[in-house]
Amino acid sequence: MDRIPRNITDNYSEEAVRDRIDWLRRKTGLPLDGIATYSIAPSDARGNIENFVGVAQVPIGLAGPLRINGNHAQGNFFVPLATTEGALVASYNRGMKVIGESGGANARILKDETYIGAIIDFGNLSEVIRFSHWVKENFSRLKEVAESTTHHGKLQSIESSIQGKRALLSFHYTTGDASGLNMITIASKAVIDLILTEVSVGRCVFPATFNDKKSTFMNAIKGRGKSVAADVTISRKLVEGALHTTPEEMMQGCYANSLMSATIGGTLSHNHHFANGLAALFIACGQDVAYVAESSVGSTVMDVSDSGDLYVSVTLPDLIAATMGGGTGLGTAKECLDMLGCYGTGKVQHFAEIIASVLLAGEVSMWGAIMSGEFSEAHRRYGRKQS
Amino acid sequence: MDRIPRNITDNYSEEAVRDRIDWLRRKTGLPLDGIATYSIAPSDARGNIENFVGVAQVPIGLAGPLRINGNHAQGNFFVPLATTEGALVASYNRGMKVIGESGGANARILKDETYIGAIIDFGNLSEVIRFSHWVKENFSRLKEVAESTTHHGKLQSIESSIQGKRALLSFHYTTGDASGLNMITIASKAVIDLILTEVSVGRCVFPATFNDKKSTFMNAIKGRGKSVAADVTISRKLVEGALHTTPEEMMQGCYANSLMSATIGGTLSHNHHFANGLAALFIACGQDVAYVAESSVGSTVMDVSDSGDLYVSVTLPDLIAATMGGGTGLGTAKECLDMLGCYGTGKVQHFAEIIASVLLAGEVSMWGAIMSGEFSEAHRRYGRKQS
Amino acid sequence: MDRIPRNITDNYSEEAVRDRIDWLRRKTGLPLDGIATYSIAPSDARGNIENFVGVAQVPIGLAGPLRINGNHAQGNFFVPLATTEGALVASYNRGMKVIGESGGANARILKDETYIGAIIDFGNLSEVIRFSHWVKENFSRLKEVAESTTHHGKLQSIESSIQGKRALLSFHYTTGDASGLNMITIASKAVIDLILTEVSVGRCVFPATFNDKKSTFMNAIKGRGKSVAADVTISRKLVEGALHTTPEEMMQGCYANSLMSATIGGTLSHNHHFANGLAALFIACGQDVAYVAESSVGSTVMDVSDSGDLYVSVTLPDLIAATMGGGTGLGTAKECLDMLGCYGTGKVQHFAEIIASVLLAGEVSMWGAIMSGEFSEAHRRYGRKQS
Amino acid sequence: MDRIPRNITDNYSEEAVRDRIDWLRRKTGLPLDGIATYSIAPSDARGNIENFVGVAQVPIGLAGPLRINGNHAQGNFFVPLATTEGALVASYNRGMKVIGESGGANARILKDETYIGAIIDFGNLSEVIRFSHWVKENFSRLKEVAESTTHHGKLQSIESSIQGKRALLSFHYTTGDASGLNMITIASKAVIDLILTEVSVGRCVFPATFNDKKSTFMNAIKGRGKSVAADVTISRKLVEGALHTTPEEMMQGCYANSLMSATIGGTLSHNHHFANGLAALFIACGQDVAYVAESSVGSTVMDVSDSGDLYVSVTLPDLIAATMGGGTGLGTAKECLDMLGCYGTGKVQHFAEIIASVLLAGEVSMWGAIMSGEFSEAHRRYGRKQS
Repeated sequence: MDRIPRNITDNYSEEAVRDRIDWLRRKTGLPLDGIATYSIAPSDARGNIENFVGVAQVPIGLAGPLRINGNHAQGNFFVPLATTEGALVASYNRGMKVIGESGGANARILKDETYIGAIIDFGNLSEVIRFSHWVKENFSRLKEVAESTTHHGKLQSIESSIQGKRALLSFHYTTGDASGLNMITIASKAVIDLILTEVSVGRCVFPATFNDKKSTFMNAIKGRGKSVAADVTISRKLVEGALHTTPEEMMQGCYANSLMSATIGGTLSHNHHFANGLAALFIACGQDVAYVAESSVGSTVMDVSDSGDLYVSVTLPDLIAATMGGGTGLGTAKECLDMLGCYGTGKVQHFAEIIASVLLAGEVSMWGAIMSGEFSEAHRRYGRKQS
Repeated sequence: MDRIPRNITDNYSEEAVRDRIDWLRRKTGLPLDGIATYSIAPSDARGNIENFVGVAQVPIGLAGPLRINGNHAQGNFFVPLATTEGALVASYNRGMKVIGESGGANARILKDETYIGAIIDFGNLSEVIRFSHWVKENFSRLKEVAESTTHHGKLQSIESSIQGKRALLSFHYTTGDASGLNMITIASKAVIDLILTEVSVGRCVFPATFNDKKSTFMNAIKGRGKSVAADVTISRKLVEGALHTTPEEMMQGCYANSLMSATIGGTLSHNHHFANGLAALFIACGQDVAYVAESSVGSTVMDVSDSGDLYVSVTLPDLIAATMGGGTGLGTAKECLDMLGCYGTGKVQHFAEIIASVLLAGEVSMWGAIMSGEFSEAHRRYGRKQS
Repeated sequence: MDRIPRNITDNYSEEAVRDRIDWLRRKTGLPLDGIATYSIAPSDARGNIENFVGVAQVPIGLAGPLRINGNHAQGNFFVPLATTEGALVASYNRGMKVIGESGGANARILKDETYIGAIIDFGNLSEVIRFSHWVKENFSRLKEVAESTTHHGKLQSIESSIQGKRALLSFHYTTGDASGLNMITIASKAVIDLILTEVSVGRCVFPATFNDKKSTFMNAIKGRGKSVAADVTISRKLVEGALHTTPEEMMQGCYANSLMSATIGGTLSHNHHFANGLAALFIACGQDVAYVAESSVGSTVMDVSDSGDLYVSVTLPDLIAATMGGGTGLGTAKECLDMLGCYGTGKVQHFAEIIASVLLAGEVSMWGAIMSGEFSEAHRRYGRKQS
Repeated sequence: MDRIPRNITDNYSEEAVRDRIDWLRRKTGLPLDGIATYSIAPSDARGNIENFVGVAQVPIGLAGPLRINGNHAQGNFFVPLATTEGALVASYNRGMKVIGESGGANARILKDETYIGAIIDFGNLSEVIRFSHWVKENFSRLKEVAESTTHHGKLQSIESSIQGKRALLSFHYTTGDASGLNMITIASKAVIDLILTEVSVGRCVFPATFNDKKSTFMNAIKGRGKSVAADVTISRKLVEGALHTTPEEMMQGCYANSLMSATIGGTLSHNHHFANGLAALFIACGQDVAYVAESSVGSTVMDVSDSGDLYVSVTLPDLIAATMGGGTGLGTAKECLDMLGCYGTGKVQHFAEIIASVLLAGEVSMWGAIMSGEFSEAHRRYGRKQS
């Protein structure tokens, strides 16, 4: 059977890449000119990809300005959104305009802590309880071992949940500006290795992946990565003039939609479409896009304020984002992060506040479109036909 | 305040794009050469993007061959994965090798139906019950109206869930080869318009978005889009030789991880990392990447078979994928779909079987790495440092 | 070691009961006069209890009249509530008064179907798909076998959910006036026996108990047993005069509580305290009280109506109740059912409408108390001290 | 319209009770001799019931001996179970026998902390964040106020979850031997009153009831009340001889049932029937039976041990039980608690360990019956017919 040329560890020479794409052209009979058009140097992609053959080009649309009054992000931002969903950029752009006319989005980091789990089997309940005491007593040593593997990660706590003879350990860290998942995997592995040396255990499953890159109640309840929120109060006049609906309609729509979903759909996340803006930002900014599954959890709430205006908030308990490491430094990703003033160290909370504010803009616009009946209209106008 | 040049409806001339990128360069002081390097004709992106300024380049690694024995997809496939997560392509590639040596992945479509919701308010419970009877009695008319808007969408049923004075209507369709979400939005809007003409209602929220682009129990339980599964039986010898663990360890790992997550984490989806492979395929193949949040729901189960070998399955109840419409026809997306023999009409079930098989490969490899203790090792070897 | 006298199958003679209670008195040194005070003839308890020694006495408080305008239950009802939670009867009584002054509770059955599950293992995905076709093709035979075991149970459908090599079959029945769980266990066992005779399967787990006597999303989404709702519109004047709050406050309280729980608590059921009234009714009326865990799922929604009054509804998707069989015919249980005009055949939908209306009364009163700030006051006044 | 005689506050004189029951007899034409047969002095029920008319008699069956090796409960226990579900007592009794022959149930308290929530609205995100800092800074004062209302309750922490402009405060207490829910309601009300005096807030919803008397992920994840577990290892020989199945079958049954429910049913609780034993114990022992909805959450796990025997555990994260206050001191309730050596102060952890051990017995027996195919057989033999 045919195999892809070149060993998978020999990925990054120009020649290796050419061999592979040529082989693929012959194999498929396709010209593949798009994939082969890129500005990234293959060698820069070492550590990000194996068997590199080229790139996927995802169109970027620009939205903004988005006015943000955050603790970290402050000012007007122009936001690159990589998507092929027609109407998405136009809709976010409209929301940004409404937010700008309302004085900007107020964004805040609520919590910043990431955790990873391990499951350890013992012989019975008594043993697992004893172990859980051992972990408490040895925490400072375990912390030292974990932190010896990293400059930026700090082990804050180890929580132990017991279920029969098994313990679910969760290791909670602050991680600086990387998304930190690789970092805490390596640090926690060092802890696990120490445990396995000193404690007699049965099986160890590490990492326990039940909460990673998935929507889970535990992540939503405890928070994971950045917990971040943003809000805005939009005057009744602007709701009527720009969104063609009323604060009361918006609140009722939210109430009905959230209640129905809460009570009938088994939804753990109450927003219109966080996933839209998030995926578009994540692709543009070189994030690990698989985290859309986890980071898009969160809720939009709309209220009529005491003054009769519309109060809108978004809350994301579980945002996994990075401004260094992973794909953040590669070609277009670095450009997009730079555009937002977010590349490198000391920038991740800045980036998280921007993300929340962008999603707020999307919610304002899309809920407005739904409540005014323009939503499916917009899809007909901007979107591709799929009759 | 500065604004992005050109009206948002004037997106697709070469000149408009150049005006925008030049303005952005001046504005940011960045060269933005990466974003400006692409092979897509802007005019081809009409309907996919607004305020087009360029592209995000996401590296594609090639994995395969992946042997699939599906009802639709049959043969060996080379799979483009667009990602910046180091080790991902290598890991999927390893899983494909193991599957190939085990005779291939057996993939099957379990169900193919998509739904969209609307919430309608009435004055009280009696009225909403009366309405729900009206819907039943008028189903054939409503079906006719819905189907008059589309060639491929067929309205199969309208389900009505009642909660107090509100009805959650869900419109269930078969959609052919598009993901169909725009299609069923337009078709259901026509039904809603008819309802609003003939029935006196309070507020109507359409679409109800509680289940769209989110992980929800309702989608997992009812299925949405393609419900698809794939399985493989891997000999004990291969588990030991290639994965460096045993069928018993793999099953125990799955048992512990799934049980702990089921009982402690509030997880609705039991897999290692469906989101990884899915995001990589979705970006490469021009899918609506926001659907990673919804489509990555599903479960991996590992059993020791009667013969002492390892049985592994993946089941995805809720996969939203397309082989026409949306971003599927654009540049690199079309190339990647063509590579898999999946572009165009009559191909979406074929594509869904490939997706399930790719995810199966990822689960085999990654679970093997976890149970043999190689997982964090692999991340240290291939991944970027984020110390 | 001491053992309880008399064989467990010899439970119901006066002598056997006396032997046991005397032994227990000697054993414990306690007089046990309360337990030994009862009016039930032990022989009547055959089929309800083994090793009978006496009774638990749970105080009954009477609430009412409760005015109900149901499809089945119509008129004024006096409701026996068995509880030891101080303030509970007073609170339900207050709610009934408010409902009465508002013209009564409008109660409706939404659905009446019960299901039970079985899990069957096959060798792989293909086999389980083949089996699921076999079930469809043989449905009429399977239906006949199921219905041969029962006069009242009718098998409506067999749904088959596939996960890897396993099928979850769910057998959906209408069950007449018994709660029907024993009935459908026996009927489905007959189907399972036929399957095991004709189809080569691996392991069969029957019944699959994941959904029985538990709060589950599947039960909430599909409905199980009686799906029933009740509503009432309460004039603003009455809200202010009797509940000491306003329609707006009530709606906002519901909104905040439901949204917070939906978004932060991982709640699948949005009511104040369905479980209170349900447990009290279930104990009084000889229901299987373990079903409180399942039947208390459901939601209360409060809205300000167009006329500025307060609209309140309760919806229970998953109520398991009976008016014959089980403990319904025993002593005080039969008396309580008779009091409600609900004992015997043809009465279970009547009973379900009463239950929903009672819970509506509780929600009105308790939400009123919370929003007016009287709740903890009431607990201080009526409840026992536990300082 | 007829009304129940006597003011609802005049409940406890012999005369008042007689007036009421006589009126009810005339009203209904029923003799009501069962309800009127009881040993409780009405005046003792003050604080537990209003409009007292008599009692519900629920048959008690005796099971045991149950051998427990707990930290608190040690020895052999005879357990009163109040139920009308045929076969229940026999089944628990069988499980206790198997556990006794296996050396007893090992029970342990994992955590003991109860919380209650409040939702407070502010004007916007900044205000709610400021408030959440205020709560931290003023914790010692708030703790003092809370603890001034109670002898036994100790406020451990106040957690603040933010969602938009609302804070969900949760007040975490240790509560001694009462279930503590009234206690922490009163204590937290004092805190709320102080907050409302010193902080300018919008609406306050207290108590927030989203987590009380309901199955919720938050309670399961954080624990509420007693978190308690019990385990036992049963020899292969005993599994085969007494349960007529094998350790492998038991484990596979658990695996299949839990996985299917985890992946298909949206279950947050993986046990056969905790609710059965719990409801029977709660009714017998004067607990607040509505808490069955919450306390029955938890999981049973079965494993084949290294020695080839069967390991079974139950874990209840969220058990609300009391040995003083509420209905615990009333007539038969006190007798049943005394029988278990559990009445009064210093006994609640003892009681919790017994409860977990009883549920373990039920799970062993009922899972054995399912896996050996005897389950529906038992229901046919012991249960009432409902054909």
